[in-house]
Amino acid sequence: MSKQFYNILPNITDAITMNYNTSELLLGKSRKPLPVRSTIIDILNDLRKLLFPGYFSTDLVDTDNATYYTGQLLSNLYRRLSTQVALALAYDREAASSSYDPELQQEADDICCAFFQSIPELQRMLLLDVQAAYDGDPAAQSREQVIFSYPGFYAVFVYRIAHALYTRQVPFIPRIMTEHAHNKTGIDINAGATIGQYFFMDHGTGIVIGETTVIGDYVKLYQGVTLGALSTRGGQHLAGVKRHPTIEDRVTIYSNATVLGGETVIGRDSVIGGGAFITSSIPEQTRVSVTPPELSIKNDTQTDLSATSYIYEI
Amino acid sequence: MSKQFYNILPNITDAITMNYNTSELLLGKSRKPLPVRSTIIDILNDLRKLLFPGYFSTDLVDTDNATYYTGQLLSNLYRRLSTQVALALAYDREAASSSYDPELQQEADDICCAFFQSIPELQRMLLLDVQAAYDGDPAAQSREQVIFSYPGFYAVFVYRIAHALYTRQVPFIPRIMTEHAHNKTGIDINAGATIGQYFFMDHGTGIVIGETTVIGDYVKLYQGVTLGALSTRGGQHLAGVKRHPTIEDRVTIYSNATVLGGETVIGRDSVIGGGAFITSSIPEQTRVSVTPPELSIKNDTQTDLSATSYIYEI
Amino acid sequence: MSKQFYNILPNITDAITMNYNTSELLLGKSRKPLPVRSTIIDILNDLRKLLFPGYFSTDLVDTDNATYYTGQLLSNLYRRLSTQVALALAYDREAASSSYDPELQQEADDICCAFFQSIPELQRMLLLDVQAAYDGDPAAQSREQVIFSYPGFYAVFVYRIAHALYTRQVPFIPRIMTEHAHNKTGIDINAGATIGQYFFMDHGTGIVIGETTVIGDYVKLYQGVTLGALSTRGGQHLAGVKRHPTIEDRVTIYSNATVLGGETVIGRDSVIGGGAFITSSIPEQTRVSVTPPELSIKNDTQTDLSATSYIYEI
Repeated sequence: MSKQFYNILPNITDAITMNYNTSELLLGKSRKPLPVRSTIIDILNDLRKLLFPGYFSTDLVDTDNATYYTGQLLSNLYRRLSTQVALALAYDREAASSSYDPELQQEADDICCAFFQSIPELQRMLLLDVQAAYDGDPAAQSREQVIFSYPGFYAVFVYRIAHALYTRQVPFIPRIMTEHAHNKTGIDINAGATIGQYFFMDHGTGIVIGETTVIGDYVKLYQGVTLGALSTRGGQHLAGVKRHPTIEDRVTIYSNATVLGGETVIGRDSVIGGGAFITSSIPEQTRVSVTPPELSIKNDTQTDLSATSYIYEI
Repeated sequence: MSKQFYNILPNITDAITMNYNTSELLLGKSRKPLPVRSTIIDILNDLRKLLFPGYFSTDLVDTDNATYYTGQLLSNLYRRLSTQVALALAYDREAASSSYDPELQQEADDICCAFFQSIPELQRMLLLDVQAAYDGDPAAQSREQVIFSYPGFYAVFVYRIAHALYTRQVPFIPRIMTEHAHNKTGIDINAGATIGQYFFMDHGTGIVIGETTVIGDYVKLYQGVTLGALSTRGGQHLAGVKRHPTIEDRVTIYSNATVLGGETVIGRDSVIGGGAFITSSIPEQTRVSVTPPELSIKNDTQTDLSATSYIYEI
Repeated sequence: MSKQFYNILPNITDAITMNYNTSELLLGKSRKPLPVRSTIIDILNDLRKLLFPGYFSTDLVDTDNATYYTGQLLSNLYRRLSTQVALALAYDREAASSSYDPELQQEADDICCAFFQSIPELQRMLLLDVQAAYDGDPAAQSREQVIFSYPGFYAVFVYRIAHALYTRQVPFIPRIMTEHAHNKTGIDINAGATIGQYFFMDHGTGIVIGETTVIGDYVKLYQGVTLGALSTRGGQHLAGVKRHPTIEDRVTIYSNATVLGGETVIGRDSVIGGGAFITSSIPEQTRVSVTPPELSIKNDTQTDLSATSYIYEI
């Protein structure tokens, strides 16, 4: 190690620890432990093994041993999730410094029992999402391929888990889950959004679905679609206000379309064309297509390119 | 563990195993094992070590020991890939329940021998892709940096491997590979697309290249470019139909442009400006630029902002 | 292993090793080792533990033990980073074949000492970035959530580290760092860009910030924003030229807007609406909104859909 560095190490150390002292945020509020991100990702992976054992489990699960497999995995998942939920509640509530608060633990147990009771229904919802992807994409070679490989399906799986915790007021954990899916798929669904059954996102990269969005059944979105807010200039004053649109049943929204605003409703059975920019409601059974911006077309053989103005390119 | 949870565990377990029984899809068709995703990703990583040992191998490979390194790695790769290909074929064909089918194993061997014989040529193609990135990007400091760090190069490496398996009718595995690259880079290239040599994608996030796209030599794409289908309303009835465009030699397509339709051809040596939306053919040697939507520009100092209508923002 | 494969293995091996011999690039220039990507990612992770111990460290750090924690982690980080910087310098300079060059090691030490001395200031900058995200996003439930989960914050953390090395002329390593963040977040910030304090990117996927971009203080960007070059046709001849725009203080740029060109300046306090396409300067205190392309709206109940032309969709 260089002598040069050892000469300055004490000063750097002091400056960093002074930052710790000045800004309590760096060490974490009340010095209490936060939920553990890696554990939460493990929980997501194990929930996937529980719901789709034929694809993600290394165990060979069949109808004869399924009860043991399922019961064991559920117990294991419950133990880990309830611990993380208790940590999240304790951190959020600035509970007393005692490391064990039986009331919070009871609350975590109540939440997790309700969550796990909803799992079989959630599993059936996800099967409809698989069907939606297979029916909607000519490039899908099988429903197995959807479960195994489709990023849009992975994002909706994580969203449905995270939403079930979000609606039960669990702090931190839903966002850790959806940002993990965002990281892996480029699809950013806030856990607060409400999404009906038979939902499909093709390609997916760049899709943003805001916190107060409401989406009906049989809806299909393509890459780059934003369901967003008109303005977030209000910052934290807008927390809790419905800022994102409502998309009714059987709507299709093609790539890179943008729909903004908490009072904007896309009526049932409508189709929104690629690149559309929509900030007010669209009636039901409507086809909205974009008159694309005019194109300027020049033939290189007839034009002195060096004399023309820049074309728009990056 | 909470007593509360143990009281409900049997019911949840029963409901999930009933789902397994009702929907055979959850346990996997015919109870046969699928290819193993983690093994396929390991194979991709080792193929990268084989093709570019100076960058991704921890072994120090030089001309003296290269034969041993290469032969050993090839043998190892062959063994793993042929096993995965045999699993994929068996699952797809609903072959007899016998765990070992010599005919399928022979088919897997034929496919893998042909695949590995194409590897040296593929390695030379990839060197041209490296050169394309270096030549095309002023921010590229060296060709080494392209190999080591460029997501567009990683995506084309994975695509070229996956395409070689796709054209030999391997099920599941090509899609697992390209979705792994999609996950890492935000670039979604279907393994069925045909892409010529000296291909460069700058930045890359959000690029979508559909299954039946045909791309010539010396083509350059920027982030957010979609080469897609006009409509996928036909769903599975459109499987196999040419739905995506043809891009001829030496075409450049700038960021966020969209080119749609199976009969759409962008003629050789043409340049498509950023944000263009194209659904019919463009002749060769043509420059297409967008007349951007009109901008409304207001000076804050002269306007009562609270009285103006919302600007479009999210 | 199949006999069939062993028959062709020698030929494939020969062809690949011949490629190694023909193209020196495959084995790495001068046969010298490159920096190790996994080590660099470990360094990023440990820097995050150093700066935000309450979130990413498994150790429980408090004001009593912070000096030991910090000093130990800094020493460890210094050793690893200075080794990687020395490797990068040696590779880049085509230094003499001797494996140890005291002059290069001294240069690496100088760089790393200066880098680590800037860390406390960088930590304070990042706290302002956390505040910017919390203030700017109604969906942010706490500042802790920003540190823990926001991809835009992760990308700016990595950028600020990488930029500190880029400005000290370290080759390879800054790009490895920013492409790691690009991979995880879909946000592509070149380490050469200059970005002021209190910077926030919401959602983030698809953002591209080019190498010579200059961004002031209190700037906010949304997903899909490109700050790019007008043309990169000049390729390597443009290396070092200012090709990307300048964004002044307190500017907000909404989703999918594109700002291009090295001489383009967005004046202070201006707001750029979603989807805008800008290639020339905008004065200060200006609101730019897009007049969106006209929408064609058809009611399905009054139209024979089968007879209408295709709508634009993919």
